[in-house]
Amino acid sequence: MLIVPETLIASLVTPEDAFHAVEACFSSMARGEAYNFPVVREALGEGRQYGFKSGLDRAAGQLGVKAGGYFPGNAARGLINHQSSVFLFDPETGRPLAMVGGNLLTALRTAAASALAIDRLARPEAEVLGIVGAGHQAGFQLRAAARVRRFRRVLAWNLHPEMLPRLGAVAAELGLPFEAVALPRMREAEVIVTITSSPAASLMAEHVAPGTHLSCMGTDTRGKQEVEPALVAAATVFADEVAQSVSIGEAQHAVAAGMLDASAIVPIGEVLVGRHPGRRSAQEITLFDGTGVGLQDLAVAAVAAARASERGLGIEVGI
Amino acid sequence: MLIVPETLIASLVTPEDAFHAVEACFSSMARGEAYNFPVVREALGEGRQYGFKSGLDRAAGQLGVKAGGYFPGNAARGLINHQSSVFLFDPETGRPLAMVGGNLLTALRTAAASALAIDRLARPEAEVLGIVGAGHQAGFQLRAAARVRRFRRVLAWNLHPEMLPRLGAVAAELGLPFEAVALPRMREAEVIVTITSSPAASLMAEHVAPGTHLSCMGTDTRGKQEVEPALVAAATVFADEVAQSVSIGEAQHAVAAGMLDASAIVPIGEVLVGRHPGRRSAQEITLFDGTGVGLQDLAVAAVAAARASERGLGIEVGI
Repeated sequence: MLIVPETLIASLVTPEDAFHAVEACFSSMARGEAYNFPVVREALGEGRQYGFKSGLDRAAGQLGVKAGGYFPGNAARGLINHQSSVFLFDPETGRPLAMVGGNLLTALRTAAASALAIDRLARPEAEVLGIVGAGHQAGFQLRAAARVRRFRRVLAWNLHPEMLPRLGAVAAELGLPFEAVALPRMREAEVIVTITSSPAASLMAEHVAPGTHLSCMGTDTRGKQEVEPALVAAATVFADEVAQSVSIGEAQHAVAAGMLDASAIVPIGEVLVGRHPGRRSAQEITLFDGTGVGLQDLAVAAVAAARASERGLGIEVGI
Repeated sequence: MLIVPETLIASLVTPEDAFHAVEACFSSMARGEAYNFPVVREALGEGRQYGFKSGLDRAAGQLGVKAGGYFPGNAARGLINHQSSVFLFDPETGRPLAMVGGNLLTALRTAAASALAIDRLARPEAEVLGIVGAGHQAGFQLRAAARVRRFRRVLAWNLHPEMLPRLGAVAAELGLPFEAVALPRMREAEVIVTITSSPAASLMAEHVAPGTHLSCMGTDTRGKQEVEPALVAAATVFADEVAQSVSIGEAQHAVAAGMLDASAIVPIGEVLVGRHPGRRSAQEITLFDGTGVGLQDLAVAAVAAARASERGLGIEVGI
């Protein structure tokens, strides 16, 4: 099997690769050729979380699992708090094919899903991008979003404003004017990405103008929340996977409050394969609930493994 | 991290090692220091099964997952049908520590659990061992059982009798007379191990004498069954994990039929830590329902990794 260390990933997988890999996996899901297995997620104590996301994509020939979690004590040890690895197996024989460092891949596949939703659901002429959140993943989101629309400026808000300059530096690199704003000014944005780990809604319905597309990417567990349920209820809601969206995604709150019916949530793959038109009017608010599915992890890890193999990189080990 | 290939396992982990590792993990479970995460088990089509067993043992400092399954097309490719690998992570930081071939380890840890139950629950003077089943794992069961009682002979039954000579060869190696018998003759056995993948009961209550200990090791999924529910109901039932025993273990059928209350099943760890006396009379039938838990896999994989590390074996890879 091939070991592809974390340090190689940046040279092997581009945001564009991740975009196409995630597009293929959401399409496979919509065609019934791929499905995610139940997610295991466990609290280990002292704030540590660990778990497994896994699945099978018959069309792509991918079977595997991402094992990973959140270890808040890591920063003090000089390690990043999120740690994950992706393991790929041969779906025919069950033999291990590759182990791929999953930290950067997780950021890339999350940003790719958000960008894919923007690409298919935001108004084509959108020029103002709003970002709620300024943590590690926000920069990836900004880069990925900038690939799919010709934005002219970026508005950003974060609970801890001192973190915003780092995101501003990414905007500068992309040649985009960047402004730290209060939440009500998000009404100027035509696309908003939320990427926080907030336990309560920051973005309210009144902060969002008609016609906006939102990619809500931060809520991936019960109890997290980024936007007001009334905003979710007012939007046409799309998701990577409906089952996760209603249980651990942003839609969990609106569904629990009886403000949104799970059957109204559209798998984004339905749009990709042409079974759903996506946005239907310039006034419609579209909201993509990106919870992160195991198949996305397998899809980008498979790109990394294939590239490493082509280039003779990584470590081949007999198992 | 350290890669310990399948081919090294036989030289690293003995049945005795597995016995002590499994004993420690069942004890940790009973003390509340270790727990198994929910099991993922999925049908992939064409008879293929894949899934994940995982857990955390705080006392042992073990966090990890066994990824594996059953691929019936493998034999024709010269591969074994059961394929699994164990991945160990640092419970403090989430960093991968080791990947260990899991095929032989699965057989060793299953046989160790059975032997541990025999050691603690069978009558000390037991001399006749019965084995129901003659597949790949039956030989491991026989070897492990022979370590904990001074058996004088072995009786064996298998649905396909032509497979029995292979098991007979293991008995011969151990110096034990071996006889292929019809099931009613299992009444001569004082210890019976069932290790089949049967979808219906083979061993009936009338085939088992009072005072017998049974280790039922084959049933690890919904729909499998080795013994008659009336036999389970008549026995004092012990299990590696009660939750698995009632859902995917041998006890599933007796519980579903209302013949056994889940609350009557004793975790074997309770016996190991001295909170349950185990066998209470020479006439009692004791039955161990061994479903196989993720923590067993981690425990034996940790032995393999530690031994490989001590001896400079395996492949150290930077991740």
